[in-house]
Amino acid sequence: MKLATLKLDKKEHGRDGELLVVSRDLSQAVSAADIAQTLQQAIENWDAVSPKLEARYAELNDGSAAGAFALDQSRLHSPLPRSYHWADGSAYLNHVKLVRQARNAEMPETFWTDPLMYQGGGDKFLAPTEDIEAVSEEHGIDFEGEIAVITDDVPMAVTPEQAAGHIKLIMLVNDVSLRGLIPGELAKGFGFFQAKPASAFSPICVTPDELGDAWQEGKVHLPLTVHLNGEKFGEPEAGPDMIFSFPQLVAHAARTRYLGAGAIVGSGTVSNPDPDGGPGKPIADGGVGYSCLAEVRMVEQILHGAAKTPFMRFGDRVRIEMFDRQGNSIFGAIDQQVVPYQPK
Amino acid sequence: MKLATLKLDKKEHGRDGELLVVSRDLSQAVSAADIAQTLQQAIENWDAVSPKLEARYAELNDGSAAGAFALDQSRLHSPLPRSYHWADGSAYLNHVKLVRQARNAEMPETFWTDPLMYQGGGDKFLAPTEDIEAVSEEHGIDFEGEIAVITDDVPMAVTPEQAAGHIKLIMLVNDVSLRGLIPGELAKGFGFFQAKPASAFSPICVTPDELGDAWQEGKVHLPLTVHLNGEKFGEPEAGPDMIFSFPQLVAHAARTRYLGAGAIVGSGTVSNPDPDGGPGKPIADGGVGYSCLAEVRMVEQILHGAAKTPFMRFGDRVRIEMFDRQGNSIFGAIDQQVVPYQPK
Repeated sequence: MKLATLKLDKKEHGRDGELLVVSRDLSQAVSAADIAQTLQQAIENWDAVSPKLEARYAELNDGSAAGAFALDQSRLHSPLPRSYHWADGSAYLNHVKLVRQARNAEMPETFWTDPLMYQGGGDKFLAPTEDIEAVSEEHGIDFEGEIAVITDDVPMAVTPEQAAGHIKLIMLVNDVSLRGLIPGELAKGFGFFQAKPASAFSPICVTPDELGDAWQEGKVHLPLTVHLNGEKFGEPEAGPDMIFSFPQLVAHAARTRYLGAGAIVGSGTVSNPDPDGGPGKPIADGGVGYSCLAEVRMVEQILHGAAKTPFMRFGDRVRIEMFDRQGNSIFGAIDQQVVPYQPK
Repeated sequence: MKLATLKLDKKEHGRDGELLVVSRDLSQAVSAADIAQTLQQAIENWDAVSPKLEARYAELNDGSAAGAFALDQSRLHSPLPRSYHWADGSAYLNHVKLVRQARNAEMPETFWTDPLMYQGGGDKFLAPTEDIEAVSEEHGIDFEGEIAVITDDVPMAVTPEQAAGHIKLIMLVNDVSLRGLIPGELAKGFGFFQAKPASAFSPICVTPDELGDAWQEGKVHLPLTVHLNGEKFGEPEAGPDMIFSFPQLVAHAARTRYLGAGAIVGSGTVSNPDPDGGPGKPIADGGVGYSCLAEVRMVEQILHGAAKTPFMRFGDRVRIEMFDRQGNSIFGAIDQQVVPYQPK
């Protein structure tokens, strides 16, 4: 099943929008507000609510759903416009290795067994096509194309096997990052904060069964497609180089605490090494490219001694989406432009 | 005005509880559900809602509020049982200095001008008298007595002066910490995650005017009282050694993003150096003591070469509260026992 959230006027208590069921081909939608007003409400009562949503999804796909309308993705918010728990892993160790290699640091062996994860702010996600407001280009504005899952209530100290059953929905993320602020923040020792402003999610989230064979061992075995200013920038495979599966990431997040329904856990930037083991090549050089600018800059630095690709400027646009093997968009597109922040 | 949240049965959509107005002396309460069902709803519409809550508060204090009942603090949840944004500063640099001194590291000069802050998980706060479930005593279970504020919607890049107007409520925190997990997590570079399980907040939160003269320059000028297993463990002054005020901490949190209404920003562990500039002394030695175990252990290590006070064991109990200069409890008490986690 595919779900989405219609933006509502905030003044009318609409911060969490209205739950929609979306047809498999993304062409049609129908309100599900009579079943659950919001996705947050649905995920809190998933066992009771999801069969009703599935029934409506079947009706929508066979053309019998009353009230169906043509879907305009620009009217959608992120599936959860805000979340009580947004934790982002870094499961593609090629990305981590490159960051370290670019500054001549070894990657500790424990990184292969103990996932990196940071806690993000979940109070104000951007809509999938909302502008990325930034205070300054000097902050080193970057995108990060990722996959994320939404869980129901997860008990403390679950095993990865148990965690798998708590993964209810899958979506894409643009984990906006301010690279210029990262070294200073990490040097302070408390992790990211100002360097990780609001993220945006794909307009549509889907249950794992929608991915068919592409959902295997808790990973999505499809390429993630990223365009920068209309040019293909990356199409890395999300499956093979994901060192920690989503069930492992969820279990990591829950090791010492309960996760509340609606918790979002991200994969980290999708990244592939070259088949020969080297850092990944750009699309133009026959590689699969990247899902963030930092990575091409690191590769440039490793291969040529200096980064030459700039970070995002005001006016730049990034598009992140994923297609099935038949070329159909699964989650719709994150499509965002960077603009200067204007005090209101 | 003083507000609190009555626990409700979770099964009946009661995760966020029911908003109560509490009398100044904490003896009486009355429902405010007809004004706003939850504190989250109230803070999202604060300008419209707070005058109505203030009117009910006046009625409750003069004995004319219909439906008033005797308050039992054990029926209260944390004022926000969950929050979309929980960010905790570390504004008492004496604490930070001690941590570093204990491992022979200098504190960078920038720490005096650039606040430390980490992003916490807000999906499942503990109630003020709820047991702290821990997987293992080996994790080094500790409490941290702190103060926190709740904001309404805060624009991006506000100044501290502007941020001050967005601070609507004040409360206490027990920022539960697993000291045994901290070194490993900080070494990974992404900050705290598993080392910071669910926090608990004081049963009552108050508007700044309730603190009278004790609320000055965005700081609370009163001692924080901490008992460990019934013995006074600390009574440090929360005002003088708070290097960054709450408006400065909120502005730091909002530098690159909007904060959503209901965001919580914490002060970090309240900590005083000795008047002679040395690390603070225990209560038994005539000092003001501490608001976390890590600190007494660091002082022991600095003065005697080794920590001797153990971290919390199963069965240990911590109580955190704050009294006005007349000895009246302002926020009620956080009073929690550590118990072994039992899979359910």
